[in-house]
Amino acid sequence: MVLAQEATEAEGLSALLVAPSADLVWLAGYEPPPLERLTCLVVRPGRDPVLLVPELERPRAADSPVGKRMETTVWRDGEDPYEALARLLPGEGRFGASDQMWAVHLLGAQRMRPHAEFVPASAVMARLRSVKDPSELELLSRAARGADEAFRKLVDTRLEGLREEEVAVLLGSLLRETGHEEVSFTVVASGPNGASPHHEPGGRAIRAGDPVVLDFGGRVGRYCSDISRTVCVGHAPKGFEEVYDVVREAQEEAFRAVRPGVTGREVDAVAREVIERAGYGERFIHRTGHGIGLEAHESPYISPENEEPLRAGMCFSIEPGIYMEGRFGVRIEDIVAVIETGANRLNRADRDLLTIA
Amino acid sequence: MVLAQEATEAEGLSALLVAPSADLVWLAGYEPPPLERLTCLVVRPGRDPVLLVPELERPRAADSPVGKRMETTVWRDGEDPYEALARLLPGEGRFGASDQMWAVHLLGAQRMRPHAEFVPASAVMARLRSVKDPSELELLSRAARGADEAFRKLVDTRLEGLREEEVAVLLGSLLRETGHEEVSFTVVASGPNGASPHHEPGGRAIRAGDPVVLDFGGRVGRYCSDISRTVCVGHAPKGFEEVYDVVREAQEEAFRAVRPGVTGREVDAVAREVIERAGYGERFIHRTGHGIGLEAHESPYISPENEEPLRAGMCFSIEPGIYMEGRFGVRIEDIVAVIETGANRLNRADRDLLTIA
Repeated sequence: MVLAQEATEAEGLSALLVAPSADLVWLAGYEPPPLERLTCLVVRPGRDPVLLVPELERPRAADSPVGKRMETTVWRDGEDPYEALARLLPGEGRFGASDQMWAVHLLGAQRMRPHAEFVPASAVMARLRSVKDPSELELLSRAARGADEAFRKLVDTRLEGLREEEVAVLLGSLLRETGHEEVSFTVVASGPNGASPHHEPGGRAIRAGDPVVLDFGGRVGRYCSDISRTVCVGHAPKGFEEVYDVVREAQEEAFRAVRPGVTGREVDAVAREVIERAGYGERFIHRTGHGIGLEAHESPYISPENEEPLRAGMCFSIEPGIYMEGRFGVRIEDIVAVIETGANRLNRADRDLLTIA
Repeated sequence: MVLAQEATEAEGLSALLVAPSADLVWLAGYEPPPLERLTCLVVRPGRDPVLLVPELERPRAADSPVGKRMETTVWRDGEDPYEALARLLPGEGRFGASDQMWAVHLLGAQRMRPHAEFVPASAVMARLRSVKDPSELELLSRAARGADEAFRKLVDTRLEGLREEEVAVLLGSLLRETGHEEVSFTVVASGPNGASPHHEPGGRAIRAGDPVVLDFGGRVGRYCSDISRTVCVGHAPKGFEEVYDVVREAQEEAFRAVRPGVTGREVDAVAREVIERAGYGERFIHRTGHGIGLEAHESPYISPENEEPLRAGMCFSIEPGIYMEGRFGVRIEDIVAVIETGANRLNRADRDLLTIA
């Protein structure tokens, strides 16, 4: 919390308004659901932080770690929560609002400070959260190992004849079996559906000759896993193996480019160049990766806009893909951690093309 | 969608910006997860609506009902999504932003329209969504009946000796058994924990003489259930039955007060008066209820601030409670639907005090 106060001041902010989100979990260990009733942690340079909660959640906050660590103040149903918030804020200046704060709450705060400037709190929070400490690295590693294990168990299953949604349910069970307390997403995209990166698994039955993109993750000790592999059920269709090799090489080259001081933009460019050189540039329709931690997507982004140098302890995905509309898709994704000499892969599942039943 | 365009115009808004949320599901049948990549439906008076999506989600949007019903436009990783959004917006005026839009996206939109006024979209959306049509009423009824059935099955179970968190898991299973596709929350608050309305079930073992507040819900066909009952395991502690009777009477009187034209404030006042008259006014620390539909909490709120007259077809909870710190709590909650002549209870589970094993 002292770090957050210092970072708030260093960023030139008068206060940081932190809504229920991973930011609040990271700062205060408090995880209420985001609701229409305002809950907001206020971090101010040189003053103690204070947590504003609805009166009916006061006992819940008091029972959480936050209750012992900081002052809590309440507002009551029927009162204006934004007036209660305003009493905790400096009169003017720049305020950071946590990226996931609901618009209705941000608009309420802006109504109380019409002349202030509001900016996304990620300016402060991304810097704090993106470098993981050893206990966070341990949880991310455990999550990644569980996801690897779920993948290995899945490919021992006969997929031919199963519907995508059945495979998704199976993946969910395997994630729980391998130590995940929560299943966050299970993309199963077979045949032409693989060309949709965020495909929702549906009623399509997997057939011999289908490439299948599997992209799934959950949480272990609140920290996220996220892995993608593309397998082939029976003989690969024409052109698939070539595309697979390009994606695999792009993933490998991007991984090798990671070290402290290199930017997300540069790592993205390495993957993109491999794919462009092979003639598939227009088919790589997303960034190369995203940070991971308490959230499945967080800073640092491995994308053309990210000019920030990577630092040791940062963790993110490297997941280039090629999407052939109407035919198939390929994506290969590992979570990696930046170390002084380069990077470690947290996922170790096989990246060779697997042909399964 | 035509209704939304008309309501946007009637509210004096130049456009409505709808982020992934129940608003987007209700308007367009599209349910992507809220993410750091901007997805936004733009509703404009007198012009066709348009859905802005990240390029990698274009196939997913095209596969959903929204893809057939409206124009979709994309932005690509590496581009500024807010510039893409600005191309869809009128130059000036008042804009509605959906209540749950993430702050980072609202701030992005405000950056593009620094002189515009932004207001919560609930000004428009609450009016549209709060009166349920027959198919919505049917789903809310099915959800309520499922929750009733889960409660009946639960009270046939011996709770003495079980930990709160075990009862919560059991409630989750019962909700699934009774037709819920999703479990949203399961409050199990025993003995003194009952005084915390949003208590998180923990390791406390339920003992003879414990009142237990049960408050749980999930989704059936995307529509929510939400019911609370307070039961007693063995003999009730001193003073409990008196408090129970007051809450039960408050719940009954508030229910009887519901009819078209009465305001949420008036219904709230009826429950509050019963509790104040009995001397427990300071122990009723929340509003009397909240609307329910695609969200567990939505308009209309049965609270001191709501001056809007109720209309037939509105659905909401009536859930007064009394919280005796350090001792116990009592809350009784039913979902009710406003009809021309008064109100229907969608929940029918017994409201008499149940003494169970």
